[in-house]
This record gives sequence, structure tokens and C-alpha cells, in this order.
Amino acid sequence: MDITIDRRSAEPIYLQIARRIREQVLAGALPDGFRLPPERRLAAALGVNRSTVLNAYAELKADALVEAHVGRGTCVVAPAAGDPAAPAPAELPWRQLFRATPGQDPLLSELLALTERDDVIPLSVGLPAPDLVPLEAFRETLDRLLTEHGSSLLLHCPTEGHTPLRRSIARWSATRGICCDPAQVLVVSGAQQGLDLVARALIEPGDPVVIEEPTYCGAIPAFRAAGARLIGVPVDDGGMRTDVLEAVLQRVRPKLIYTLPTFQNPSGVVMGVARRRRLLELATRAQVPVLEDDPYSDLRYEGEALPSLAALDRAGAVIHLGTFSKVLFPGFRLGWVVAARPVVRRLTLVKQAVDLHTNTPGQWVLDAFLRDGRHAAHLDELRRTYAGRRDAMLRALEQHAPPGVRWNHPQGGFYIWCTLPAGADVARLLTRAAERGVTFLPGPACHASPPDQPALRLVFSLLPAAELAEGVARLMAAVRDELDRPRGAARGEIATPPIV
Amino acid sequence: MDITIDRRSAEPIYLQIARRIREQVLAGALPDGFRLPPERRLAAALGVNRSTVLNAYAELKADALVEAHVGRGTCVVAPAAGDPAAPAPAELPWRQLFRATPGQDPLLSELLALTERDDVIPLSVGLPAPDLVPLEAFRETLDRLLTEHGSSLLLHCPTEGHTPLRRSIARWSATRGICCDPAQVLVVSGAQQGLDLVARALIEPGDPVVIEEPTYCGAIPAFRAAGARLIGVPVDDGGMRTDVLEAVLQRVRPKLIYTLPTFQNPSGVVMGVARRRRLLELATRAQVPVLEDDPYSDLRYEGEALPSLAALDRAGAVIHLGTFSKVLFPGFRLGWVVAARPVVRRLTLVKQAVDLHTNTPGQWVLDAFLRDGRHAAHLDELRRTYAGRRDAMLRALEQHAPPGVRWNHPQGGFYIWCTLPAGADVARLLTRAAERGVTFLPGPACHASPPDQPALRLVFSLLPAAELAEGVARLMAAVRDELDRPRGAARGEIATPPIV
Repeated sequence: MDITIDRRSAEPIYLQIARRIREQVLAGALPDGFRLPPERRLAAALGVNRSTVLNAYAELKADALVEAHVGRGTCVVAPAAGDPAAPAPAELPWRQLFRATPGQDPLLSELLALTERDDVIPLSVGLPAPDLVPLEAFRETLDRLLTEHGSSLLLHCPTEGHTPLRRSIARWSATRGICCDPAQVLVVSGAQQGLDLVARALIEPGDPVVIEEPTYCGAIPAFRAAGARLIGVPVDDGGMRTDVLEAVLQRVRPKLIYTLPTFQNPSGVVMGVARRRRLLELATRAQVPVLEDDPYSDLRYEGEALPSLAALDRAGAVIHLGTFSKVLFPGFRLGWVVAARPVVRRLTLVKQAVDLHTNTPGQWVLDAFLRDGRHAAHLDELRRTYAGRRDAMLRALEQHAPPGVRWNHPQGGFYIWCTLPAGADVARLLTRAAERGVTFLPGPACHASPPDQPALRLVFSLLPAAELAEGVARLMAAVRDELDRPRGAARGEIATPPIV
Repeated sequence: MDITIDRRSAEPIYLQIARRIREQVLAGALPDGFRLPPERRLAAALGVNRSTVLNAYAELKADALVEAHVGRGTCVVAPAAGDPAAPAPAELPWRQLFRATPGQDPLLSELLALTERDDVIPLSVGLPAPDLVPLEAFRETLDRLLTEHGSSLLLHCPTEGHTPLRRSIARWSATRGICCDPAQVLVVSGAQQGLDLVARALIEPGDPVVIEEPTYCGAIPAFRAAGARLIGVPVDDGGMRTDVLEAVLQRVRPKLIYTLPTFQNPSGVVMGVARRRRLLELATRAQVPVLEDDPYSDLRYEGEALPSLAALDRAGAVIHLGTFSKVLFPGFRLGWVVAARPVVRRLTLVKQAVDLHTNTPGQWVLDAFLRDGRHAAHLDELRRTYAGRRDAMLRALEQHAPPGVRWNHPQGGFYIWCTLPAGADVARLLTRAAERGVTFLPGPACHASPPDQPALRLVFSLLPAAELAEGVARLMAAVRDELDRPRGAARGEIATPPIV
């Protein structure tokens, strides 16, 4: 029971007490039959006369909210809902009430939860290194901004985003060859929201959408939620196969082509310049928008930068999606879209009904980081560190991988893509690996339809070199178990185990 | 042109220069015909020998990316996409590519933008008072949390929300009669996202959804985006008319009943306890979920607290939606859902594909505010201040309103609902009001179908008493103009003017 008294109030204290108890009875906080404290005890606890409590209880009796019983004291009589003889109503059959949607896979949530276990080395989740978060720079920046701008940082901002941040993103984009106006920039609550907004603006149930196979595992449910029919175009060492794309476009006119041309998630592959131009040519000719998801292009460790699709685009066909989550403060959920103005206007209308706007303080801080050069400086540091981590993971793979396991040598990004000999079961391997204290992202999570070859994605950004080496050693021990398993237990004989 | 040199790199400096220029040419940052600086000038600018720049330019010539012309210097030859003789491709016809959805009204964005003009007194937008934001408490709290927990505040958190905050919200809910488990709490990116997630989990195109008339203007596009067919049930002085609801439920089985029972937005009305019980009885019998949107119930200035629908619910039928945006830090976009576990699980899956999770730092700060009692203390301060502002607005209405204008006396929340004599045109009134330097929310924005009576919503939370009084005086002058207009300009003769 929770009773506070305001002695300055005009309301008499006994009425205050009665009111507080009434509220709690009506709210269900004091259930039917609950015994109120004896008058003397409550009076002492509240520092009031006993007669005050007696008067309060009398009020409640008059309302039929309590009853006094000899020997039992004063008890709550909760008002019954409707007929007091009626049984408690049946619980709602929620599972039948939900909308029919393709089952969304809780795998990502579960892999994220596994990262919190101390005994598991997570090679599964595409996160930046927590030890590289520029914490002191963040504190200094936020402190200065709060001093200079006060509560503006904590209030609403326009749906399109904090205006100075939109300007900074436009300037930053220009240094990467994407010439745009601040009006072409929309701030979104992480790149994931960018995918969702684009899907909701363009896709109607049944519409075809071209994706890469493999692709970013979080894009598949975002497009499926909008009702998309996914058409996979394979990725090889040079990125999305534009010859296959061309054949697809001869048959169907998709609503969208979704691609990660640079340090692709999950394969780490870069699409070459010729294919970039070819993709744009095909898309423009067919008048199909291209969604360029570009979280990693600033994380290049070797080789030459290539122009983004948005930089090459002359038809306004590219919706370019960027994010700060892979380089600064993933917890702030901040990304952006650069696109033709009609696209930004439409996405803004969708976003207004979705979350009004992206959180304001994060936008102020990231604007300051872009303006004062800390963002660029931090990228330099990340590139140095991640290059070393990538090399450590590659060395560990060379040392521990059994024959038949193959992997690529990415020039940037977060990921190494590993293929296993045919017949290996990556779902079972994930169980084996978790038992040995390591996780990875199973290849099938990155495919819209079951892939031909067993594969897995490894992340080298998150952990220091020694942990990466230990993780790869554990994983490859699990791979050896999987490859050496008795022939009787062939592929398909064992049901897919739950992801643990 | 943007060239930086890394003197510690193994890559020769002339190749670094060539590479940076090549990148910018390919990226389109240096257009076709762009004249590179004379070798001597660039050498001086970079602090290198002239021969270094000569070698760099020679590299670029070998790549056919530049040409040297006598007298004109070295100029960029941008690689053409595809056939160099082809004209620039046609721009994508974006308007034809967007999904067909009911036109979403940019009114809210536009009213929000008007709040930034110094010469306009905004009585339109339901925002908390910026001068009451507890800025120093925020700084202290964040500073302490960063010292104690470091970069955890800036990293990812579970899709369901920061676990300690879910516990704090469950405890806070219990003090308001809503007994729930932390597993029944989902943190969302503002209450607006709660509406969107619920709509996406439950509504399929064409599904009926019951709303109040009038209702929260941001709920209408959220439900419509999911394809809902909206069925309005009128609100009177005692809240949603449950007799009308009963008649509706005899005809259709909606997917959802959406209600704001306490200090309703926009009407300020409170639904009485008897109707609350009746609504739950009807919904439970028909097995229809109830979405209780409850942003304002902590902002009661007089009268007794009533139990929320969630507190009265015995069937797990209520999805309760709360928010911090009306009481603390609206810019952080933080709200929560309390519901039966299957609902929280389903909404979590939807949210994972929508934005992965809500921003982490805001969740840590609000958790601390709930734990250390600052949240409760701040509510006390808000109640005192807002009660005074409400009274100031009521006094100003009494002083300035012409005959025929009526308004209510809300016991809490942010809003006063004002009705005008039949025949007044609120869209035209908004134009007149904006000319006089004041805005309001036109009643039709809160209705799914055109309302019978002209009405408008006034906000008393945002501004100090003197500004409220001045705003009401200006508005009522505009109302007098509208009511006194020549009879020839009858309703409907003038097209709806744009919202300015």
C-alpha cells in the first residue's frame, strides 16, 4: 500500500488517505480480500491521529469499497466487473489474431543474446569493436553541445532529421562523389529502418524484388514484411552477376533491386566498376529503382576506392543507404538515405507515421563529429585496427581449417565468407560450435531460398586478435567433427536442431 | 579536389596522389573537362617535389583519365557510362513507382515546422514545455552512467529493450495497478512506433479497426498504412460511447479497438469507470484486442485517478501503450508496450525487422530516472505547472471567445477542445489564424471521415501563461473574422487553402 500525504493541500488529510486507497483498489493494486492495516498502525506510520484514519476508512465503507469484519479488520471488496457470478473471461487467443506473415526468424535476436555470454566467442554478429568506441570524445562533444544549446538536444526535431546534420551528411557524401542537396538527405533510425521505409514506400504484396544471394540477413524479413516476392541473383567474386540480372529483367519488372556493392554482407565481395555501370544501365533502362546499401565502404583496408552506385547514377535511380552504426555509436541507431527529392518526400511521409523522427541527441552528436573531423579521424583508427584483425583471422583460418574449407580475402568491411564441403550441415555445425564456445552466422540465414553450398559468415571486427584466433580454432574443431561424422548420419537425416 | 598524403605509407607518394585523383574522377567529384591544378601549384600545396606531381599525372594519362592540352593544362576525361554518344538516361518516374497508399497528410510536419517561427504562437502541437526539461538532472545522470558503465551506453541492446529498463517499467506499471512481468514489457521508439508495430502485427488490408472520433491524428495514418478500414465511434463527455461500440460489434468483428481513455487526445475527455468496464466486457466477449494509448494519465491536475484498462483487464486483451515523450526528453523517442507475452514476442519480431532496437543511451537514462525517483518528482513539478497553464488558457478563452464558441475543462493532459458554430470553416480559420500569428490543430485532422461540427484542438502545455493568453486572443480575433464573414462566402464555396 502506497500512501503519501500532502500537508499543504487544501484537501483534508482523511480524504487524501481515502482517495489514495480508493485509487489502489480501483486499479487492482489492492486485491479483493486484502486486509487494510489496523487504524492505529496506519496512523502511526503516517504520523496522523487515529481518528483521521478512522474517518478515511469510514469514507471507504460508505463507497462499499471496504468491509469491517470483527476479528479480521477492514478488508477490500473489489468491485466486480459485470456479473459478479461470471467466471473470469477467457484469455484472448492471440496466436489466431496475429496477421498471417511469413515466419520471421528469431535467429538474429538469439545470436545477439549469445554475445552476452562470457563463455562464448561471438564470430556471428556484425558489430563494431566496443573497445574502439570514442567514449571521451563523445562525452566532451555532448557536454559542449548541452552547454551551448541546452534542452534543444532533448526535444523533437523534424521528421526529415536535424537540419545541420542533413547538411553535414550532404557535404560528407560530396567528398565521396555523391553530389546531393541537404533536401535529398533523410535521417533514419539505423539503416534497418531505411530498408523498412523503402520497402513500405515501394512494395505491394506480391511485388518482385531482386536481392543478391547471399545477402544481408536482416533485409530478407524487411522485404518479406512488405509482401515482396524475392528473386535471388547470385554473387560471385566480382559482386552481383549482372548477366543473371539481365536475364531476370527480361522476364519480370521488379519493384526494386537491392544490392550491397562494397564489402558485401555477408560475402565481403566488392562489385567491380564495370558491373556497377552495367547494373545501373540495366536498372535505368528497365526503370527499376536500385537500393544501394553501403555500410562498409569507408572501412577499406587495401586497394582502391570505387565509386558508389549513387556517384555513378545519372537517372536518379539509386536510393543510397548509409549508417553510423558500423563506425560510431551503434546504440544511437542513426543512418541516412540519399535519394531523389520525390523519394525523400515520400519516405518522410512514411516515417512520420512510423516513429515521428529519429532521436535528437544522437543527431546533434554525429553532426558535431562530422563537422570537427573526429568522424574522419576515427575512420582512420578503425581501418588500422580492423585490418590487423582481418589478418589475424585469416592467419588463424590458414592454421586451423581442415582441407575442403575455403574462404576469401576481403579488402574491407567486417566479414569473411567460408564455404564447407558439400554435405556439411551448418545448422548442426552451429550447435556443435556453440557447445565448443563459438558462434557464426549460418549461410542459409543470408538466402531467400536454401543455398546449394554450405557456408558461414565470420566477423573479424568485434574482437581482438587473440580472441579471434581462439574462436577460429574452436570453430574449426567443430567443423572437423562435422566433416568426420559417421557416414550413416548423412545430410537431411537429422532434423534441424534449434539455434541455441 | 581533396588530396591527403600519408608519408608513413609504403605506397609511393606519386601513386597516392594518382589514386586520390582517380577516385575522385571515378566518383564523379571531378567532372569531365575539370582542369587539374598546374603541377607546380599542386606540388607547393602538397609540399612535394614537382616531379612527384608530374609522375602522378603521367599515371593518370596512362589510364586515359586525364589529357594534357597545350595552353589549357591537364583536364579530366570522365569515363562515359556505356555508349559515350548516348544521351543522359531519363530520370526515373518516381511518382508512378510509389506504392498506392491513401494520401498521408503532411499537416503534422508542417505544423511542427511552424513552431520554429518566432512570430507564430503554436497552440497546435502536443509538446511538453521545453523550459521544464530537467537538463541538469539529465547531465548528471548521463555523466554518472558513462563513468560507471562506459561504452555500454553507446552499443547495441536487445530488440525487446534494455533489460533493467524493462524491469523498471514493470515496477512503475505495478504502482499504477498494472501487474506485469518484465517479459511483458517491450521498449519502443516512441508511442508512435507502438501504434505502427501493433498495426503491422494485427491488421491486414481491408481489416476493420475501431477508433474514437475524434482521435489522435497520428494514429489514423499509422492504421491506414497497414490497410485498415477505420470505423469511428463517437466520444462524448464520458469518453468513447460504448453503446455505439456495442452496436458496431454486432455488425463487424474488428481486428482492434483503439482508445485513449484518459485525457483523450484531442478532446481532453476521461472515460468513466463504468464505460471502461463495459468496453472490456464487450471486447473480451467479441475477442477483439484493445489498444489503450495512455500518454497523459500521469498528468492529472484535479479529480481522482481511474484505473487504466490494462489494470482492469482480466483476459489479457489490452495492449497498453506508454511514453516518456510527454513528460521527459521527447527527443529520445522512448515509449513502451505492456501486453500478454505472445503479443510482446510477436511485436519484437516485427520490431527486429523495423529498426533492430530503440536507441540505447536514452534507455539507460530513463531507467535511472525511474529508479532514483527523479521521474516521479518531475511529474509533480509538471502537474503544478501545467495546471496553472490550463487555468490561464481557460481564463483567456472566457475573456476572448465570441458567443457560440464552446470548450471543455479538462482535468489533465495537454488539450482543450473547442467547438465553433456550424458553418465555420476551420481550414480557412487556420489560414486566418496563421496570418495573425497563431496556430491550432484543425478538428478534421482527428477524424477518419469529415466531422459534423467545426472544432479545433488547443495545447496549453507548451507555452507560459502570458503567451497562451496572447495566442488565445489572436486566435479568437481570427474566429470573430471567420464568424463575421459576409454571408455570400458560405461554407464550401472556397477551396481548402493550403496549410501554411
